[in-house]
Amino acid sequence: MVKLTDQIKESLTGTKTLFLATASRDGTPNVVPIGAFKLLDDETLLISDQYFLKTLANMKENPKVALSYWGEKGGYQIKGPVTLHTDDDVFKQNVAWMKEVRPNLTPKSAVVMKITDVYIVKGGPDAGKKIL
Amino acid sequence: MVKLTDQIKESLTGTKTLFLATASRDGTPNVVPIGAFKLLDDETLLISDQYFLKTLANMKENPKVALSYWGEKGGYQIKGPVTLHTDDDVFKQNVAWMKEVRPNLTPKSAVVMKITDVYIVKGGPDAGKKIL
Repeated sequence: MVKLTDQIKESLTGTKTLFLATASRDGTPNVVPIGAFKLLDDETLLISDQYFLKTLANMKENPKVALSYWGEKGGYQIKGPVTLHTDDDVFKQNVAWMKEVRPNLTPKSAVVMKITDVYIVKGGPDAGKKIL
Repeated sequence: MVKLTDQIKESLTGTKTLFLATASRDGTPNVVPIGAFKLLDDETLLISDQYFLKTLANMKENPKVALSYWGEKGGYQIKGPVTLHTDDDVFKQNVAWMKEVRPNLTPKSAVVMKITDVYIVKGGPDAGKKIL
């Protein structure tokens, strides 16, 4: 695992939409925009699942995910494995959080991503470079 | 292949950034923002590669890609296989196009995506539904 720098955290929390990529066991990628996410700590992201369909099926088959974003404060690609939670304290925490910030949404699972890699996505000679 | 509807085409051409997901042979997803793209026709997207690193390596191993976007006119997920072009008429066309619209960029390959599937990504009961 890695610890996100303040600059990466600011770019992430200043972004409304992340694009979450998964892959099925046969290697077919899938990517969807997500809006319900927050950092639990410097190396852990919580994603609330209301509507995941193929994304959820893929994560059950293959826990490796990647996400990317590009907001007002720049963006990165972040990779790591996820765990899925539907009936434990993590899920309860997710439900409480969504009740507070998006009471119209009903979470069906909590996705916890342990961040293992961060890459530059800005165009230029450093594009694709692993920085964490 | 499928033919994009006018509504999907408008949402796509009204978006500055697409997020392009690929997967390596071992199933590790990768996703990056891209800005240099255009429709060649209703079922074919051209993506100009200036800086692809892992994305390019993955496409050489596994031609299946997915892209997603969310702009002012909504968004979708689009899937299909790609072909890579570096020394043919398609590449020459890509170079000429970029010279016109982004003369500061130097394409190193042209990525041609044949669109085979389109999915709803908007949150709600239809999220994840295949529409084309």
